[in-house]
Amino acid sequence: DLPLTVIAGPCQLESRDHAEMIAGRMKEICEAAGAQYVFKASYDKANRTSVSGKRGLGIEAGLKVMEEVRAAIGVPTLTDVHAPEQCAAAAQAVDILQIPAFLSRQTDLLVAAGETGAVINIKKGQFLAPWDMANVVAKVESTGNSRILLTERGSSFGYNTLVADMRALPQMAKTGYPVVMDATHSVQQPGGLGGSSGGQREFAPVMARAAVSLGIAAVFIETHEDPDRAPSDGPNMIPLDQMGKLIDTLMQFDALAKANPIEI
Amino acid sequence: DLPLTVIAGPCQLESRDHAEMIAGRMKEICEAAGAQYVFKASYDKANRTSVSGKRGLGIEAGLKVMEEVRAAIGVPTLTDVHAPEQCAAAAQAVDILQIPAFLSRQTDLLVAAGETGAVINIKKGQFLAPWDMANVVAKVESTGNSRILLTERGSSFGYNTLVADMRALPQMAKTGYPVVMDATHSVQQPGGLGGSSGGQREFAPVMARAAVSLGIAAVFIETHEDPDRAPSDGPNMIPLDQMGKLIDTLMQFDALAKANPIEI
Amino acid sequence: DLPLTVIAGPCQLESRDHAEMIAGRMKEICEAAGAQYVFKASYDKANRTSVSGKRGLGIEAGLKVMEEVRAAIGVPTLTDVHAPEQCAAAAQAVDILQIPAFLSRQTDLLVAAGETGAVINIKKGQFLAPWDMANVVAKVESTGNSRILLTERGSSFGYNTLVADMRALPQMAKTGYPVVMDATHSVQQPGGLGGSSGGQREFAPVMARAAVSLGIAAVFIETHEDPDRAPSDGPNMIPLDQMGKLIDTLMQFDALAKANPIEI
Amino acid sequence: DLPLTVIAGPCQLESRDHAEMIAGRMKEICEAAGAQYVFKASYDKANRTSVSGKRGLGIEAGLKVMEEVRAAIGVPTLTDVHAPEQCAAAAQAVDILQIPAFLSRQTDLLVAAGETGAVINIKKGQFLAPWDMANVVAKVESTGNSRILLTERGSSFGYNTLVADMRALPQMAKTGYPVVMDATHSVQQPGGLGGSSGGQREFAPVMARAAVSLGIAAVFIETHEDPDRAPSDGPNMIPLDQMGKLIDTLMQFDALAKANPIEI
Repeated sequence: DLPLTVIAGPCQLESRDHAEMIAGRMKEICEAAGAQYVFKASYDKANRTSVSGKRGLGIEAGLKVMEEVRAAIGVPTLTDVHAPEQCAAAAQAVDILQIPAFLSRQTDLLVAAGETGAVINIKKGQFLAPWDMANVVAKVESTGNSRILLTERGSSFGYNTLVADMRALPQMAKTGYPVVMDATHSVQQPGGLGGSSGGQREFAPVMARAAVSLGIAAVFIETHEDPDRAPSDGPNMIPLDQMGKLIDTLMQFDALAKANPIEI
Repeated sequence: DLPLTVIAGPCQLESRDHAEMIAGRMKEICEAAGAQYVFKASYDKANRTSVSGKRGLGIEAGLKVMEEVRAAIGVPTLTDVHAPEQCAAAAQAVDILQIPAFLSRQTDLLVAAGETGAVINIKKGQFLAPWDMANVVAKVESTGNSRILLTERGSSFGYNTLVADMRALPQMAKTGYPVVMDATHSVQQPGGLGGSSGGQREFAPVMARAAVSLGIAAVFIETHEDPDRAPSDGPNMIPLDQMGKLIDTLMQFDALAKANPIEI
Repeated sequence: DLPLTVIAGPCQLESRDHAEMIAGRMKEICEAAGAQYVFKASYDKANRTSVSGKRGLGIEAGLKVMEEVRAAIGVPTLTDVHAPEQCAAAAQAVDILQIPAFLSRQTDLLVAAGETGAVINIKKGQFLAPWDMANVVAKVESTGNSRILLTERGSSFGYNTLVADMRALPQMAKTGYPVVMDATHSVQQPGGLGGSSGGQREFAPVMARAAVSLGIAAVFIETHEDPDRAPSDGPNMIPLDQMGKLIDTLMQFDALAKANPIEI
Repeated sequence: DLPLTVIAGPCQLESRDHAEMIAGRMKEICEAAGAQYVFKASYDKANRTSVSGKRGLGIEAGLKVMEEVRAAIGVPTLTDVHAPEQCAAAAQAVDILQIPAFLSRQTDLLVAAGETGAVINIKKGQFLAPWDMANVVAKVESTGNSRILLTERGSSFGYNTLVADMRALPQMAKTGYPVVMDATHSVQQPGGLGGSSGGQREFAPVMARAAVSLGIAAVFIETHEDPDRAPSDGPNMIPLDQMGKLIDTLMQFDALAKANPIEI
């Protein structure tokens, strides 16, 4: 029943300055609104639609930036890992390791992440039912680590389209772990632009608000000062200058939701 | 920006006494919560899963009960029509004619309903995209009637399952017409029990709250004092004695949503 | 284990001459290939995407043409019915009454059609699972009529898209009734052109061949001498001048399939 | 236009004797039927539903068995790889490296596999559209390797269900690469048994035949002498003693399909 946590940042790391600019601005916004803030960014985009899509700073330079942001801005941080051997280093540099949705059934990755002892945020695969996450969770728990977050980011719905089923949030909450709504990826149109993914940026606040009204633990939002120039996921990101008003509104819904818990 | 309207009632008419009991109780609940109330019931269930499913009182006796409820309880009423020739009589007896989802592309029915001049509530077909409703609306508008409501009740999602896409609500609102969330049918499991439809009653409040948080005009909820004995749709109905608390909570989310309109 | 039946014709009746031209040409093609032929056409398109879509000749003129085609060309005929009161007249004029997919759960229509004693071809709703058809069949059987055909025409798959599940064919065959593959509607893109439905004409032969290889009773194909000028369903129709080669090939697959029955 | 290739074997390697038994039997069956045969088995099941699911012999022991089977039985072999660093060793031991469906967008894995120069069989992700495979193919082609196969294994269709869209086969063939139908995984029910995946073994021959009738290059079938005791994927495997008749029938459909190519 803690107030909403906001996990936000650019899709991929661009530079230390850029990361600190966004983390700093988001920290101010969240503090003003009474939300806890976690900075999110990726050091590598390992599954771009196209081989020519930009992949980011790479693990070494990227994790260094993540450490600098954490130290300089004073916020907890999250990044995604794509292979078991990345987990230990990433867990040194950030607070939360994230398992990408496509990799949410890869046992070795889940176990390696769990073994670091870090908090593990598992994105539900686009091909999984909410109740399938009980088996996914058990893979991390097998390491003795029960610091787990579960994230909804949409289910495959025909071709090049996702749909976010609101039932998935209370359903995943039955595991006992905090549930996160990824408001920006759930409005992605995977592969929808041919050589890259499209998105429906305008619907991200819709997803965020509907989910927050159900009393979830956190919302995940990708943001950028100029989404149309972001190296990835621009079509579904929320512009940074709209985040203040959005978070503010979400916190009002969060307070009302936490005062009126839904019981399934 | 009016406060939320609640469209609620049993799935099918059972008797005058039963209808008045539910309408009376719901009227009290809605008045106490500051919601406008519309009584809903069906005189005929024309598309039961099984030929042996109960179909209701029939049009003549059913419409008579609808008139009596309106007069006795003093609430506007809604019923669904299944054929063009039923529209005129139904429009005499109730305030709102509803087009069932399966019939949402039947031109003659839409036109006949529109020609009555009554308010027309069109349920989006399980097989339609939200933007397809613009063509459906135009069929009613072709009669000169623009008193139209549009209802989300879920989209086909694999076999025996529906999913309610929250994006459909603001998308349909682009037509300029009020949007309704059918919180109970959207958690139906069509045909899921073999000879009848299953449902996930526990998720109906989830759907209602998520949708209301987006600032919709109305919520549609089927209710019964003993859902497990209701002649139809029992598995997804909300027990009548839980409606007070539910409506109360929804009105708080409605007030917050109306104060913070979403713009798409 | 009879040879494949081909149900084919234009989507909607245009004129007596046009109907007889197509019926005559198809009869020649089917006789040459060893297939039984049924002429199909609609006298009314009751659920066009848009209110301005052409609807056809109407029931009176349309049924008259259907009778003339049957007499002049000497082939059995099929047309679809949209309301219970149409069934008796339609059953006088044609051999097979077809229940449209959107209407496949409307009890009164199924019963009225069944009561005529005609053969009833029920198209599986885009919102139904194959096993749900057992309940649909029981509605017709309740009239004592067991001259039933079941047609696959695709399931909703996200927005504006259908997918035809090959499993549906043997699954529906478990009812004991002959199964038909609608090769042209299953490649429709419902509402996909905004004011009308799109289609993927090039994939219709793919659907037909895959289904025929499983040993089905009949294939349903809409055809036109100039699909791009057809008043409806042009995008998914097969040009008439390609039907000869297509039917010829399908008959070879049919013979092989009937010699190697699949048992589920 | 070569005759059909059959890629078949147990889901996971159990022992050298077991692998050789199946490879030997399948080789006989395929030779008798005129099909080319490729032995398939996995040394590791890296994405089991549950952490307690059996994973197989491991890479070292497993690749050794794969080499022994190839040498002893004299057939080409296929195995799947799950991480970039596995590719070089696997390419020494087998002829075809397979990219698992969940990993079909992981750029590093595709590139590492491509760089070995081996034939690469890419399974289409359950979350991808057929046309998305053009981008996947380009990742492998970026290494200069154009020895590529593309496999259909079903698309997500609601929860715990897959559907195989027959249009995907000619659509993927537009890339110019040979197309494979995975007849057993496409009838899988992912996660459908709670702690493991269910399946509909009886429909695997349906999928195989429908696909082969379209003139594909190869069919992929998992088989076991006692599927109910197989350590994984038992519910969708075909019993070994039914493979002779199945392959025999498929070859007849293949000959007919290759004589009547479909042009899209």
